[in-house]
Amino acid sequence: MIIIMKPTASAADIKKVEDVVRGRGLSVHESRGEQVTIIGVIGDKTRLSGANLETHDGVEKLVPVTESYKLCNIKFHPSPTRVTLRSAVIGGGFTLIAGPCAVENEEQMFTTAAAVKRAGAGVLRGGAYKPRTSPYSFQGLGEKGLKMLKAAADSVGLACITEVIDFDSLETAVKYTDAIQIGARNMQNFELLKEAGRAGKPVVLKRGMSATIDEWLNAAEYIMASGNAEVILCERGIRTFERATRNTLDISAVPVLKSRTHLPVIVDPSHAAGVRAYVAPLTRAAKAVGADGAMIEVHCNPAEALSDGEQSLTPSEFAALASSL
Amino acid sequence: MIIIMKPTASAADIKKVEDVVRGRGLSVHESRGEQVTIIGVIGDKTRLSGANLETHDGVEKLVPVTESYKLCNIKFHPSPTRVTLRSAVIGGGFTLIAGPCAVENEEQMFTTAAAVKRAGAGVLRGGAYKPRTSPYSFQGLGEKGLKMLKAAADSVGLACITEVIDFDSLETAVKYTDAIQIGARNMQNFELLKEAGRAGKPVVLKRGMSATIDEWLNAAEYIMASGNAEVILCERGIRTFERATRNTLDISAVPVLKSRTHLPVIVDPSHAAGVRAYVAPLTRAAKAVGADGAMIEVHCNPAEALSDGEQSLTPSEFAALASSL
Amino acid sequence: MIIIMKPTASAADIKKVEDVVRGRGLSVHESRGEQVTIIGVIGDKTRLSGANLETHDGVEKLVPVTESYKLCNIKFHPSPTRVTLRSAVIGGGFTLIAGPCAVENEEQMFTTAAAVKRAGAGVLRGGAYKPRTSPYSFQGLGEKGLKMLKAAADSVGLACITEVIDFDSLETAVKYTDAIQIGARNMQNFELLKEAGRAGKPVVLKRGMSATIDEWLNAAEYIMASGNAEVILCERGIRTFERATRNTLDISAVPVLKSRTHLPVIVDPSHAAGVRAYVAPLTRAAKAVGADGAMIEVHCNPAEALSDGEQSLTPSEFAALASSL
Amino acid sequence: MIIIMKPTASAADIKKVEDVVRGRGLSVHESRGEQVTIIGVIGDKTRLSGANLETHDGVEKLVPVTESYKLCNIKFHPSPTRVTLRSAVIGGGFTLIAGPCAVENEEQMFTTAAAVKRAGAGVLRGGAYKPRTSPYSFQGLGEKGLKMLKAAADSVGLACITEVIDFDSLETAVKYTDAIQIGARNMQNFELLKEAGRAGKPVVLKRGMSATIDEWLNAAEYIMASGNAEVILCERGIRTFERATRNTLDISAVPVLKSRTHLPVIVDPSHAAGVRAYVAPLTRAAKAVGADGAMIEVHCNPAEALSDGEQSLTPSEFAALASSL
Repeated sequence: MIIIMKPTASAADIKKVEDVVRGRGLSVHESRGEQVTIIGVIGDKTRLSGANLETHDGVEKLVPVTESYKLCNIKFHPSPTRVTLRSAVIGGGFTLIAGPCAVENEEQMFTTAAAVKRAGAGVLRGGAYKPRTSPYSFQGLGEKGLKMLKAAADSVGLACITEVIDFDSLETAVKYTDAIQIGARNMQNFELLKEAGRAGKPVVLKRGMSATIDEWLNAAEYIMASGNAEVILCERGIRTFERATRNTLDISAVPVLKSRTHLPVIVDPSHAAGVRAYVAPLTRAAKAVGADGAMIEVHCNPAEALSDGEQSLTPSEFAALASSL
Repeated sequence: MIIIMKPTASAADIKKVEDVVRGRGLSVHESRGEQVTIIGVIGDKTRLSGANLETHDGVEKLVPVTESYKLCNIKFHPSPTRVTLRSAVIGGGFTLIAGPCAVENEEQMFTTAAAVKRAGAGVLRGGAYKPRTSPYSFQGLGEKGLKMLKAAADSVGLACITEVIDFDSLETAVKYTDAIQIGARNMQNFELLKEAGRAGKPVVLKRGMSATIDEWLNAAEYIMASGNAEVILCERGIRTFERATRNTLDISAVPVLKSRTHLPVIVDPSHAAGVRAYVAPLTRAAKAVGADGAMIEVHCNPAEALSDGEQSLTPSEFAALASSL
Repeated sequence: MIIIMKPTASAADIKKVEDVVRGRGLSVHESRGEQVTIIGVIGDKTRLSGANLETHDGVEKLVPVTESYKLCNIKFHPSPTRVTLRSAVIGGGFTLIAGPCAVENEEQMFTTAAAVKRAGAGVLRGGAYKPRTSPYSFQGLGEKGLKMLKAAADSVGLACITEVIDFDSLETAVKYTDAIQIGARNMQNFELLKEAGRAGKPVVLKRGMSATIDEWLNAAEYIMASGNAEVILCERGIRTFERATRNTLDISAVPVLKSRTHLPVIVDPSHAAGVRAYVAPLTRAAKAVGADGAMIEVHCNPAEALSDGEQSLTPSEFAALASSL
Repeated sequence: MIIIMKPTASAADIKKVEDVVRGRGLSVHESRGEQVTIIGVIGDKTRLSGANLETHDGVEKLVPVTESYKLCNIKFHPSPTRVTLRSAVIGGGFTLIAGPCAVENEEQMFTTAAAVKRAGAGVLRGGAYKPRTSPYSFQGLGEKGLKMLKAAADSVGLACITEVIDFDSLETAVKYTDAIQIGARNMQNFELLKEAGRAGKPVVLKRGMSATIDEWLNAAEYIMASGNAEVILCERGIRTFERATRNTLDISAVPVLKSRTHLPVIVDPSHAAGVRAYVAPLTRAAKAVGADGAMIEVHCNPAEALSDGEQSLTPSEFAALASSL
C-alpha cells in the first residue's frame, strides 16, 4: 500500500503515520517529492486493518498496490481452473447451459431437457426459487421444482443447476443438482456466500448489477475461503443509464477476468439483454471474446412462460444458435 | 397497462393479443393511430402475470400505468406514517440516529451513547454483524456486541438500532434492539425482507446501491406484505461513475419518495460520502430537502475505528453539526 | 403519443388536455380504465411541440410511441446503407480502420500505413486535432498532420479519416480526407453536426460517453437532416461505474442499432478498453456480434506515442489480430 | 506520480523505466516491497507527457499524485473567487439566477424579469440558442432573442446571462449579456472553452452529464488558461440509472468542489430534476449544502413554454421559494 500525504503535511504528521505503520510490524519507504511525500508500506497490509490511516492528519489518500483476493488470484494460481459437471467441463471450451428461467411443470422440463441436449447443451438450468422485484410475482415451485429439474436432467444424462436464495434453498438444492447458482442480487449476501463455500457443490456466481470486477472477485474469495474451490463466474450485465437492453452486458469483463483470475468465466446474454432477438449475437460475441460458456434461457413456449418469457429462445432458435457457434 | 403494437402488426396479431387479455377477464380499449395501434388494458394487471404479452407477434412494448406496490403507495394511504422508537419519532420532524459503524467495546459504546444523547440524537446505532467486501476484514462482534449496544442505549435512555444480515442475526437482534436495519447489499434479499416483515420491530430499509426508487418501494412492499407496516426508507447513495465520493447521494430521492409513499425517509450521509468533511453539509441538505432524519456515524476516536473510520465524526463534530441544524 | 392521466384527474382536466390536442389538428382516443384514463394521440406528434402537455393539471406522464428520428430509422428505410471510402466499403462485411491516435510525423505515418495495409486494413486513421481533457496535453499537428495522413494513405492506396472538432478543422479536413469523424465529446455539439451534414464527405459519428442509443440516432438525424446520408455509427464505450476498462464497451448496442437503423455500425475497442491486451478479443467479439467493422489504434512504437500509447497495438499485433478474424 | 511495477517485473524492467524518467530530467525514488516495487517520480510530471510509461514491460499502473489543473486549484489559490454581474455577486452569498429556458417574445421577458427581480433574483437568464436532442425541436430565436433578454434585464436593472453553443453565438452573446453559459453538452467542446477564455465576460460552466468532477475542473482550466479568471461552476445533475428524475443532482459535488477549487459553485435544480415539484426542495438543499446560488427556470405560463415547461416554476412559485430561503 502507498500512503500519499497532503502538500501541507508536516514532518510530525509524516512521522506519526510512519510510526503507526511500523507499530504494526511493517516497514516504510519514504519518498519525498517536490510537492508531496509518499510513504510506501512494505509487508502484509492486512496488519493495517483498522488502523484508519486515512483519518490521520496530513494523509491525502491510500493507494492499494496488491489485490485483497488471494485464492482466486491468477498471480498465485496461474493454472486455469476447470469445473466438471457430470460429462460437461466448464473451462477450456465453450459450454452451453440452457433451460427455462423457472421450472413450471414436468412436461416443460422433459421436453426442454431433450431439446437442449439434442442441440448440444452440456447443462440444464431451471429456477425453483425465484427472487422477484415485486412480492406479487410468481416465486417458484421450490423442492417440487427441483425434483422435476433433476428428473428431466437425468432422463437425458445432463448435469443440472439451479439458483439458491437462502440457507434453506441451498440445503435443499444440493440434494438434487450438480451445481448451484448465486444470483446477482445475492452477490454480496456474504452469509450465503460462506454457506455456499461449505456446500460441497460447484457454484456459479453471477455478478451483482452494480458490482465492480474486484468486488466480484472478493465475493468469489468468500466462497473459496470457506473451502470451495469450484467457482464459475457469470457476467450477466451491469446497470447503466442505457435502457435499450435490460442491463448492459460488460463483454470486456471476460478478458479482464482472464487476466486476473484462474476461474472459468461464462456469460448470460438472456438476462443481460432481456430481449430475445439479441441473445444469439451476444452469445457469439461471448464465444469470440474468450468466455468458457454461456447460460441461455430456453422455453418450449415463451409466450406461456411464467417468468422472463420475453428473453427466452424457443428450442429451435436455441438449436440454430448452438449450431452457429 | 398499455400495449403498443409494432407498425407492422397485422389485424390478426392485434386480435390475438386482445383475445389473451380478454381471456384473463380483462377489458381492452383499442386505439388505432396513423402508424401504430395501441391497446389499453382495463382491470387488475396482476391477472396478466405470466401472459408474456411482449413475446407475441406484433407487440412492440408494454407500458405499465399503475405501480406494482400498493401498501406503501401514497395514492392508497395518503396519511404519512410515523414510527416511534422509544421517545424518538421518525416522521414529522428531523431525527438524528448516531453511533459507530461497528460496536467494538463497552467503553466505546457508553462514551458514544452519552455524547450523542447530549448532542440531541434520538437513536443510537451500532453494527454487530458487518457485511464486508473482503472475507479478510473485521466481521463484527455478534450477540456480544448487541448486548453492549443495548446496555449503552439503556444507560442514557435512547432507542437503538443495528443491521441484520441473515435469519440468525435478525432473530438475535430483535431481542436487543428497538429497530433493525437491512443494508444496501440486502435490499433485494427477498427472503430476509419477508422475515423482517414478521420480526415485530420497525425496519430501516437502505436503498440498494443500484436500485431504482421503484425497486426500493417494491422491497418495502415485501416487508409490509409480510405484516410489518413500520418501514423507514434510508437513502445512502447510489453507484455512479463519480468517485470523488464513495457513492453519489441521490438527494432528489427524498422529494420523489415523498410524492410516492407515506413512509418516512431518512438519509445516511456518512456512507454516501465516505469522507468526514462532507457529512455535515450533506446532513444540512438532507434536512433542507425534507428528509425525516439522518443516520450519522460517530466514533470517539475515528483513527482507531475498526470500520469506516474515515467517514466518522468525532462526538464534538457531531455536536457542532446537531446544533447547526 | 400516449397521455397517461393521474387517478385524481377530473373530467375537466381530461377534457382540457384533449382540447389542446385537437386544437393542434390531431385526434384523440380516450381509454378509461378502472384507475386511470389514457389518451391516445393520433397524428404527427411534432405538432405538439411546445404544448407542454405534461404541465397540465391531471397529467401523470407522456409515453412516446414512435421515434423522433426518421431519416436513419429502419422502419422507413429498411435497406442497409453502405458507405464507400475509396476501395473500402463499410457495411455488408467487416472492415478494419487502423492507424495511430495522433499523427506525429511522416515516417510514423508511412510506416504505419504500409503495415496496416499489408495486414488487411481498408482505411487509415490518424488524429490531427485532439480533444484532450487537460489544456496542458498535446493538442495535435493540425493541417500539417492532415497532409502527412493523406500522403501516407495515398502511398498505399488506402482511404483515410480524421477527427474534426470545430468548423475550422472540419473545413480543413474535408480537403484531405475521405471521411471525417465526430468524437464522443462532440456527439451533441449540434452546430458541428449540422455543418458535418453539409460537408460532402461521409461522417463517422462516435457515441457520446453517456448518450443513449436514441440520443445517438437523433444526433445522426441532425447530420442526415442537413443533407448527408453517409453516416457510420461507431460504438466506443459508455461511462459506467466500472473502472477496470476505461469505458464499458456496449457490445449490445450493435444488435440494438441493427434493429433500429439502416446505417452501418462499427466498434472502437481501443478507446473502449483503454488497455492493449483487451483490444484483440473485443475486436473478435465485435465481428461476432454483427458489426460492420472496427477502428483500431496501431502505433509503430506505442511506448513513444504522444497520445493513447497504452491502448495501441503494434503493427505485428494488429496483423495477428487481422488474420485471426 | 507513482509507478507501480508488476510482481513479475525484472530488475531490467525497473531500470529501464527509471532511465526513461531520469532521461526527462526527473528524479526517481525506488521502494522495493515484498511483492512489488514502486517508483516515485519527483518533479514536474508534465515532462513525462508522451512517455507512455504504462506501456513499458513490467509496469502495472501509474497513480497520479497531484492534480492536472492549476489555475482553479484551491491549493495554489486558497482565497475564494467572487464574480460580479452588475449588482449581483456570485460567491459569498446565495444568488438566484432565474428566467425562462428559452426567450420566446418581448412580453414574456419583460413580465418574467419584473417578477423575478421583485422576488429577489440577482440575474435574469434566457436561452436564445438551444441545443436540442432532436433536429426537429425549437432551436431558439438567436440574436433577436438576445435583444429581448437584454432589454428586459435593463428594464429592471438585472444582469443577464445566456447559453452559447458555438463561436458565432458566443461572439453575438457577449455584445448583449453580462455573462455567458456553456452547457453540459459542450463542457468538453475544448475549442469553445478556449474561445470563452478570450470572451472578456464571466462564464458559467455547467457540468457535463457524465463528467467527473476532475474533468469538470480541467474544463474550467481550459477557460482560465485562455485568460479568463471569472468562471462559475454549475452542477446540473449527472446521468445515472435512476429515471425518477431527469438527471441525478450530485449535491455532494458542492462540498467536494469547495475543497478543491476557489471558484464559485451554483446548482441548477430545474434541469437536474426535470420536474417542477422537486425544484423548491432541491434549491433549499443547495443553499444548505453551501452552494453560492441556484439557476432556476421561471416561466409566466409553463403550459405554453416552447421548451422545458414541465420543470419551470411560475412567478408566484418562484417568489414563494425565494422567500423560503
